Amino acid sequence: MPSSSLSINKYHIAVAQNASGRNLNVPVYHLTSNTSGPKVYIQSSIHGAEVQGNVVIYHLLQALKQQPLKGEVILVPNCNPVGTNIKAGEYTLGRFDPVNGTNWNRGYHYDEQAVVSFAQTVEEREDVSDIKSRFRQVCKEAITKKLEQSWGLGLAQGLNLTLQQLAFDADIVLDLHNGPVSTRHIYIPEYAKHAAKQFSIPHCIFIPKVFAGALDEACFCPWWTLQIELEKRFGRAFDFGVEAFTVEMGSQEVIEFDEGKKDAQSILAYLACKGMLDDKQHQPQSMQRFGVMLKDYKTLFTDFGGMVEYCAQPGEHISKGEILAKVLNIDELENERAIDEIKAPCDLIPILHFPSASVLSGTQLYKCFTQYFEIS
Amino acid sequence: MPSSSLSINKYHIAVAQNASGRNLNVPVYHLTSNTSGPKVYIQSSIHGAEVQGNVVIYHLLQALKQQPLKGEVILVPNCNPVGTNIKAGEYTLGRFDPVNGTNWNRGYHYDEQAVVSFAQTVEEREDVSDIKSRFRQVCKEAITKKLEQSWGLGLAQGLNLTLQQLAFDADIVLDLHNGPVSTRHIYIPEYAKHAAKQFSIPHCIFIPKVFAGALDEACFCPWWTLQIELEKRFGRAFDFGVEAFTVEMGSQEVIEFDEGKKDAQSILAYLACKGMLDDKQHQPQSMQRFGVMLKDYKTLFTDFGGMVEYCAQPGEHISKGEILAKVLNIDELENERAIDEIKAPCDLIPILHFPSASVLSGTQLYKCFTQYFEIS
Amino acid sequence: MPSSSLSINKYHIAVAQNASGRNLNVPVYHLTSNTSGPKVYIQSSIHGAEVQGNVVIYHLLQALKQQPLKGEVILVPNCNPVGTNIKAGEYTLGRFDPVNGTNWNRGYHYDEQAVVSFAQTVEEREDVSDIKSRFRQVCKEAITKKLEQSWGLGLAQGLNLTLQQLAFDADIVLDLHNGPVSTRHIYIPEYAKHAAKQFSIPHCIFIPKVFAGALDEACFCPWWTLQIELEKRFGRAFDFGVEAFTVEMGSQEVIEFDEGKKDAQSILAYLACKGMLDDKQHQPQSMQRFGVMLKDYKTLFTDFGGMVEYCAQPGEHISKGEILAKVLNIDELENERAIDEIKAPCDLIPILHFPSASVLSGTQLYKCFTQYFEIS
Amino acid sequence: MPSSSLSINKYHIAVAQNASGRNLNVPVYHLTSNTSGPKVYIQSSIHGAEVQGNVVIYHLLQALKQQPLKGEVILVPNCNPVGTNIKAGEYTLGRFDPVNGTNWNRGYHYDEQAVVSFAQTVEEREDVSDIKSRFRQVCKEAITKKLEQSWGLGLAQGLNLTLQQLAFDADIVLDLHNGPVSTRHIYIPEYAKHAAKQFSIPHCIFIPKVFAGALDEACFCPWWTLQIELEKRFGRAFDFGVEAFTVEMGSQEVIEFDEGKKDAQSILAYLACKGMLDDKQHQPQSMQRFGVMLKDYKTLFTDFGGMVEYCAQPGEHISKGEILAKVLNIDELENERAIDEIKAPCDLIPILHFPSASVLSGTQLYKCFTQYFEIS
Repeated sequence: MPSSSLSINKYHIAVAQNASGRNLNVPVYHLTSNTSGPKVYIQSSIHGAEVQGNVVIYHLLQALKQQPLKGEVILVPNCNPVGTNIKAGEYTLGRFDPVNGTNWNRGYHYDEQAVVSFAQTVEEREDVSDIKSRFRQVCKEAITKKLEQSWGLGLAQGLNLTLQQLAFDADIVLDLHNGPVSTRHIYIPEYAKHAAKQFSIPHCIFIPKVFAGALDEACFCPWWTLQIELEKRFGRAFDFGVEAFTVEMGSQEVIEFDEGKKDAQSILAYLACKGMLDDKQHQPQSMQRFGVMLKDYKTLFTDFGGMVEYCAQPGEHISKGEILAKVLNIDELENERAIDEIKAPCDLIPILHFPSASVLSGTQLYKCFTQYFEIS
Repeated sequence: MPSSSLSINKYHIAVAQNASGRNLNVPVYHLTSNTSGPKVYIQSSIHGAEVQGNVVIYHLLQALKQQPLKGEVILVPNCNPVGTNIKAGEYTLGRFDPVNGTNWNRGYHYDEQAVVSFAQTVEEREDVSDIKSRFRQVCKEAITKKLEQSWGLGLAQGLNLTLQQLAFDADIVLDLHNGPVSTRHIYIPEYAKHAAKQFSIPHCIFIPKVFAGALDEACFCPWWTLQIELEKRFGRAFDFGVEAFTVEMGSQEVIEFDEGKKDAQSILAYLACKGMLDDKQHQPQSMQRFGVMLKDYKTLFTDFGGMVEYCAQPGEHISKGEILAKVLNIDELENERAIDEIKAPCDLIPILHFPSASVLSGTQLYKCFTQYFEIS
Repeated sequence: MPSSSLSINKYHIAVAQNASGRNLNVPVYHLTSNTSGPKVYIQSSIHGAEVQGNVVIYHLLQALKQQPLKGEVILVPNCNPVGTNIKAGEYTLGRFDPVNGTNWNRGYHYDEQAVVSFAQTVEEREDVSDIKSRFRQVCKEAITKKLEQSWGLGLAQGLNLTLQQLAFDADIVLDLHNGPVSTRHIYIPEYAKHAAKQFSIPHCIFIPKVFAGALDEACFCPWWTLQIELEKRFGRAFDFGVEAFTVEMGSQEVIEFDEGKKDAQSILAYLACKGMLDDKQHQPQSMQRFGVMLKDYKTLFTDFGGMVEYCAQPGEHISKGEILAKVLNIDELENERAIDEIKAPCDLIPILHFPSASVLSGTQLYKCFTQYFEIS
Repeated sequence: MPSSSLSINKYHIAVAQNASGRNLNVPVYHLTSNTSGPKVYIQSSIHGAEVQGNVVIYHLLQALKQQPLKGEVILVPNCNPVGTNIKAGEYTLGRFDPVNGTNWNRGYHYDEQAVVSFAQTVEEREDVSDIKSRFRQVCKEAITKKLEQSWGLGLAQGLNLTLQQLAFDADIVLDLHNGPVSTRHIYIPEYAKHAAKQFSIPHCIFIPKVFAGALDEACFCPWWTLQIELEKRFGRAFDFGVEAFTVEMGSQEVIEFDEGKKDAQSILAYLACKGMLDDKQHQPQSMQRFGVMLKDYKTLFTDFGGMVEYCAQPGEHISKGEILAKVLNIDELENERAIDEIKAPCDLIPILHFPSASVLSGTQLYKCFTQYFEIS
C-alpha cells in the first residue's frame, strides 16, 4: 500500500429543518492530498429513491484511501435527507417535494446575463486562473445573496443552493442518479464530448448549453457561456477545465454493493484521465458506446391506461415495429381485444422504463435513444 | 319568469384513462341562447382539491336558466377527474400529478413565434372578425397537432390541451380556483384592468404578458401578442375582445353553497357588463378593491421548521413589524425560545396562507400583496 | 410568585431511526416537586397531524412553573417524529405508518391473561401500594421483553412500547389528540365516570374494558382487570387510583395558542381535583356536559361519492331528519338531482366531521353522539 | 378443439363511487358449462399493486375456452378499482385505503357465533347438500344485512362484502395476490393440507382456523367451524367440500405474460384434481415442496434505518448466521462501521423481502419459513 498523505475531513451541513424543528444534516467527506490537482465534487441521492450512488461513494472512499491522489475530492452522499425519508407505501417518494411537486433537481442557480456582464470585466491579458477565481467569487456571491433574501426561499431551492455553494468550487462535478428501471447512461455537455470514452458507461447523451435547473447544467453553463463570450471578445480559445455530468447508475430503489464497485471504477478511470490518479491502474473499460443528441433522446408516452408488460429491456437494440410493451385490458379478457401491443415507432435503444405495471394514459413508458450513433 | 329560449346541451368528454383502462370523463354543459353575443368558457377544479368552483357553476346554471342570455356559455365543472380522486390521507392530493409532480395547470399551449408569424399574414384591410376566426383556426390546429403527436403526451399536458380546445373558441375564459386558506382574489391581465371593477372581488392581481403554462395565460397571451404585433405593423389599435381570468374563490377542500351563490353573482355581474345579461339585475358590488402588480405579489417562506399559528388572517391589512405567525419549538418549551415570531417585512395584505400547522423550512407560509393600491 | 421547588429535567429518547440512519428523538420534560403526590404522564401528537396538544403542553409547562405542585409530571410533546414529518401535499399524513397503513395508536401492549395470572400471586393481606409496585414491575418487564425480541418489531409498535415504558409508571395518563374537524371531547373509562366533571370538556364518551391497542386502554385495562380479579378473589373493593384518558382538543392541522391555554386550564383543574395543585385556583368550568356510551357513539358513512358541504357543525344538537350534509352531483348540475341531502337518522350531536369536501363512498362523514344524556 | 358447451357471461358490478360521483365497476366473467360440477370463484388485485393475478385470469380464460369444463367458474380480475388507481410517485399505493390506512383485505365477514347457532338448527338426518344450501342462505343474508345497515359502511368493508356475496356461493375460492419481492407461495387451511400437492407452488403455509378478516379465512372459517360443530353434535365426520386459498404469484408491480401462463396451469391442475377438467392434460408439476405452520412463518424487522442490499433471494435456503442483508450507514462511510450485516437468526427460507432499499427502523425486511419441512 502506498504511503498516502490523504486526509479525510468529515463534517455535516444543515440543509433544511423538519416539522419537528430539527436540522436535517448532510454528511460531507472532504479528501485532501498534499499534491495539487483538480477539485472534484460528487453528490448522490438528490432524488431520494436513487440510492445506488451512496454505494458508489462508499467504494470511491475505500479506493481513494489506498492510492496517491492529486487534488481534492468532496463526497456528499444522501444529499437530500427530506427526499430520502418520504415514504408512500413501501417505496420512497423521492423525486419531488411532496408538498408542492417541485423536482428536487430543478432549483440550482444560473444567471446568463450576469455571465455576459462578467465577461466584459475580463482584461485582454488576464490570466486564466485569475479569471477563474474572480468568476467563482462572483457566482458564489450571487448564490449567497439568493440564499439570504429576506422573504426566504422554497425548500428545494434552498437545498439546491446550499449544495451548489460546495459544488461551484470544483472543476469536476458528478451528480449521481438512477433511472426508474434503467441501464447505465450519462449526460455529457457537448463541449466535453471526449469524456464519453473516459467513463465505462455504454450510453451517452450529449446536451447543448440550455439551463433547466439541474446541478450539472448549473455547473457547466456559466463556464461554457463565459468561454463563448471571451472567445467572441478576444478571438481566441479559452478553456477553464470545468466539466459536470449527471451519471445514471442503474435503477432506483436498489442497493447493490458489487455493481457499485464497478461504477466507482468507472469514475476512478475518469479521474485518472484527469491526472488525479495513476492511470495505469485505472483504465476505462473497452466497450461499445452509443451516443445520442439530447433532442433525439425521446420519451414514449402511452395513449391509454392499463396493466403493462415491458417487453423491451433497457439497453436492447430494438427495430422499428418491434413490440415494446403489451397492455392488458381487463374489461376484454375473453376476446381478441384483451392485449394491446405498443410498437417501436423507429429504431431505438430503450434506456429506461416506468417501474410499475399499472399506468394511466400519458405515462412515460420508455425513454429511448433514437438517431443514435456509435462512439468510436 | 322570462320566456327564455336557452338550450342546455350536456355531454361528456374523455380526458384520460385510468390504470383500469377506463375513460375518465368530464361533463360539459353547453348553454346556447337564440340571441347572439359573446362565447364564455368556465371551468373548475383543474386542481383537484379546489372544489368550490363546482358550486359556483351549479349556481350559474340555476341563474342562467331563469333569464334571457345573449351568446353562449360552456361550463366544465370538475375538469380534472384524476386530480379529484387522488386521496392522501383525508385530503385530496389535487395540485399535481402524483406520479411526477407536474402541476395540473402548467401544460397549456402557447407559441409566441407562431403568433408573430401569423401577424405577418394579416392584410391591412382584413376585418377583425375575419382575423379572429382565422387566428382561432390556426391556434386550434396547433393544439390538435400537439395532441396527436406520435410519441404521445404527458397526462397533465394531454388533459390541458383537451380542455384548451374547448376554451380557445371563447371570448371570455374563467378558470375557477381556490387558495389553500384564502380570501377571494382574481388574476387580471394588465390590458383588461377595467375588469377589476366588473367582478365583486376585493383583491386583484395585474399580470403582464408572460406565459408560464396556465389556462388564463394560454388564452390571453396569443390575442395580446397578436394585438401588439398588428399595432406595430399597422400603427393603429386592435381589440379582439378576448379576456381570460383565474378567479380564486376562497379556500380549497371546502364546499359552501351560500358562498358559491355570491361568487356566481359576481360572475353574472361581469357577464352583464359584457352585454350578455340584463345589467340592471346584475351589478358588481360596491366595495373597496385593492390591486397589486404581479411582481409585488410576494411569497413569504419560513426559514425554519416547526408548528405554526397563522396570526394574520387572509384579507387583513398588516403593518410592517406586526406578527404574522408564531412557531412553536417543541424542544424548547420550558424556556424563552419556546415561541418564534415571524413579522411582516413591510406593510402587506396576506391573501392566503399554508393550510397546515406543521411546516418544514422553505414552506410557503403566506402570499401577500405588497406595494398595493386602492382601485377606484 | 410562590417559591416553587419544582425541578425540570429535559432529555430526549430515541424512538426510531429514519432511512438516513439517524435517530428520531422525542423530547421529555420531567417535572418533579419536593412534595409527594401522583405521577402524571401526558403525551401529544402520536397522530402526526394532531398538533394542538403540543401547545397545551407548552401552556401546562408555563403554568406548572409558577405554582406549588405535589407529585411528578412527565410531558412528552410531539411523541411521534415519523408521523409529524410525512407530508402528502400540504397536509400531514400523520394517522398511520405510510408504509403499511398501521394506525400509530394501536400497538400498545396489554396481556389480559398475564393480569389474571398476576392476580393469583397477590396475597390476602398485601398492601395496595405493594401490589401496585409489583404489578408495575411485571407489566414493564413484559414490555421490555417485547421490545427486545430477536426478530424485531414493527415501527409503530416499537414506538408505542417505548412510550408505554414511560407512561406505565404513571397514575394518570393523558393522551392528547385532535379530531379532523372536531369539537372538544374526551374518552373516559366507565370506572372513572366521576372524572367527566373534573375536566372542562362538554362531550364525554364512556368506554368499557375493551382493548383495541390505544394508549389509554393499554394504561387502564391492566389495572381495571386486576381490580376486578382481586375483587372476585377477596370479595372486597380495590382502588389503584390509576386513570387514563384520550382527550380530543379540537381540530387537527391547527395551532391556536389561546385555545391551548384553555385546554391546559381544563387539565390543571383535573390535576387539582387529584390533589396535585391548589384547587381554589383551578376549578373545572361550570358547563353543560353530555355523555354517551361507546356503543352509541356512531359513525355515519356516506353511501355515495361526491362533493360535500358539512351543514351540521360539531357540537350542535341535531334532530332526526335534519340535514347533516349536502352532496353536489357534478353530472346532474342542470336538473333536480344536482344536490343530495343526507339527513340525521336519529337525534344526535355531531362531534366531528371529515375534513375534506371530496369524498368517496364509504367515507366517515360524521361521528355522532346518539342516545346521549346530560351529565349532572 | 373439443365441442365445448361453455358459455361466458360478462357483466360489471359497482363496488364503490369515487369523489366525482361515478360508479367504480368491476368486471365479472361467469363461465358456465352444461355439465355439473363445483363452483369456483377467483379474484385478483384486491391489493391494487398486485396485478399479476389479472394475467393469470386472462390465461385461465383462454385455457377454459378450449376444453370441456364441469361446473362453473367466476373470474373477477382487478376487483379493487380504488386501490388500482391510487398512485404515489410512480408506484401504486394499493395495499390500504389511502384515507385511513385500512388494509383492503381485512373487512370480510365472519360471525363465529352465528355458525354455532346455525349448527343447532341442523337435524340428524339432514342431507349435506341441504345443510350447505341452507347455510349459504343464512350467511349471505347476514352479509346483505351488513351491507344495508342504515349508518353505512367503510369503503374497504363495503367493497369486501360486495365481493364476498359472489364468493360465498362457491365451493372453491382463490384470492390471487403478490408479495413485494417474492417467490410463489400459497396459504392453505390445515384441514385442506392435501391441496399442497395439487398446485405447482413450492412454498405452502398451513393456517389454523383463525379469522383476521381476509377473504380466504372468511370463506373457509364458516364451513370449518360448522363441520367441527356438527361433528361434536353428531359424532361423525362432515365434509362440505369447500376450500379457499390465498395464492401469492410472485412480485407486485409486475406483469409477465409467460409467468402468468404457468400460474394458470398450476390452477388448472388443481381444478383437474377437483374433477372439473380432464386430469390427464393437467397434472401438478413434480417439484420439491416445503411447508410451514403459520406460527413459524416469521417476519424479520430491522432494528435500525438505512440503505439495504437484500443478499438472500426469495426461495433460497439460508443457514443460521448467513448474511441476509447489508445496511449502508451513510454517516460512517470512511470507517469500519460503514456496513452493518443482518444475519439469519436460524435456518430459514426467505419468501419475500421489502421492495425498497431505503428503510426506517421497524421495517419488515423479510418474511421467512422457519421450522419448515418437506411435503412428500
